[in-house]
Amino acid sequence: MIDDVTVRGLAGLWVPLLTPFRDDLSVDFDRIADFGRERLDDGCHGLALMGTTSETASLSVAERMRILEVALAAGIAPAQLTCGTGACALPDAVELTRHAVQTGCLATMILPPFYFKGVDDEGCFRSIAAVIERVADPRLRVVLYNIPSLAGVTITPAVVQRLTLAFDEVIVGVKDSSGDPMSTLRLAKVLRGRALLPGTEGYLVGALKSGATGCVTATANVRARPIRELLDDPAAANARDRQAELTAYRSELERDVDIIVACKRVLAARTGHAAWALVRPPLVSP
Amino acid sequence: MIDDVTVRGLAGLWVPLLTPFRDDLSVDFDRIADFGRERLDDGCHGLALMGTTSETASLSVAERMRILEVALAAGIAPAQLTCGTGACALPDAVELTRHAVQTGCLATMILPPFYFKGVDDEGCFRSIAAVIERVADPRLRVVLYNIPSLAGVTITPAVVQRLTLAFDEVIVGVKDSSGDPMSTLRLAKVLRGRALLPGTEGYLVGALKSGATGCVTATANVRARPIRELLDDPAAANARDRQAELTAYRSELERDVDIIVACKRVLAARTGHAAWALVRPPLVSP
Repeated sequence: MIDDVTVRGLAGLWVPLLTPFRDDLSVDFDRIADFGRERLDDGCHGLALMGTTSETASLSVAERMRILEVALAAGIAPAQLTCGTGACALPDAVELTRHAVQTGCLATMILPPFYFKGVDDEGCFRSIAAVIERVADPRLRVVLYNIPSLAGVTITPAVVQRLTLAFDEVIVGVKDSSGDPMSTLRLAKVLRGRALLPGTEGYLVGALKSGATGCVTATANVRARPIRELLDDPAAANARDRQAELTAYRSELERDVDIIVACKRVLAARTGHAAWALVRPPLVSP
Repeated sequence: MIDDVTVRGLAGLWVPLLTPFRDDLSVDFDRIADFGRERLDDGCHGLALMGTTSETASLSVAERMRILEVALAAGIAPAQLTCGTGACALPDAVELTRHAVQTGCLATMILPPFYFKGVDDEGCFRSIAAVIERVADPRLRVVLYNIPSLAGVTITPAVVQRLTLAFDEVIVGVKDSSGDPMSTLRLAKVLRGRALLPGTEGYLVGALKSGATGCVTATANVRARPIRELLDDPAAANARDRQAELTAYRSELERDVDIIVACKRVLAARTGHAAWALVRPPLVSP
């Protein structure tokens, strides 16, 4: 049985929160909650902690858990928080997922292990099933995180079907960062009533027509409001123009550098806080 | 100044030790030391702990450190141990590298972070330099681990040159798992006197002519002796036939499945210990 309450809670605009660093590249935990609150004030429905945009791959397990704790301690509602808990190492993914469940955050986002290549549907299914089985908590709610360009593994519609069949109530949706409208459409067909969140606003209107229930996008770190407005009224008379403007803005961000680096540069310039431009290697802030 | 003592210590045949699991996929620490000693008895000069073949990406930081500790506690000499300490997260790589240095093992092997793609020479250089600078220990000795097919990043000859220039004594060699004889040749030209270890015996004779100083190969987990014999006498009259036989044996192992799965299957069949066939997801043991 699909958990409709959680699915409804996942609808809307989610910001995959950037991670602020200090000059020594340690996480600046003190700046996370305020930055998160500003994003909510700017129109985001919730904070998607620990996705690609948070440079999660570059953070330790302890740092990842503390970021979630800091957000909660600052009073951000668990219902406005999701947390990425996927990891290459099964014990890490289990520890992170257990921790997230215990905090009461709305859902965890899990991507498959991303070191080994040529992983087939069986390997992808087993990776995620192993985490769910080991966490073994009735409160667990999982959004599958499909990001083939970085994970090197695709969560195919067939894998989604197997997982929803095996863990019906646990699986509440997919975040689809394939960048491919056809992928979003194919996933919608197997999700039937679960959340579907493309990882870009670049084809938002089309995605909503295909069955998307919102979007998770890095751009929301620097300019969420116009995305929210289009999301709230995708049938507006000027929706096509608004979509074109959003797509153009995002393309501009992505033009020369990684979108994470680009967003951090915008924030550094806007706030006058030079440390915003810092990224951990292998990303490079020029 | 090149650390010739360490470079000489790295010459020879290294086995990237498979990791044994129990039925619940926890690491079977009790089987590691005996298995390692058998490999030394079978002709390996040393154990290259925590490379790709150890399914290191699928292990937690704590598990990785304990495997090294277990090998040392069982009496395997630090001079016969190297330890992979690369990780996506800078704090993890620093913690693992510090730990390895403190154990006195011969060298650490470091691969660049492997989540983000499109990483250029600057990002690759900074990733590894950041670890070396933070560990800041005069005993640190690093073998650069080039495995573009899995890391998605190439440690180019230009990066090797920058790193040897910046950290002359620290950098003692390269493990080249590109599978490409031309890559090995290009790396030899910039290493000038440091260790060069291809990650396969598939072109061992050619690699030695190019300047390789040994080899690290998964095959040594199941059949080290003939590799060692060719390594000891690559100019033997029958070297060409021996090379052809080694190459054919490896190709057979790789034919249907991942070489890690293949080697584990061989061990399960040979020892009668079925648990040898176990791998952590995303790998799949049929």
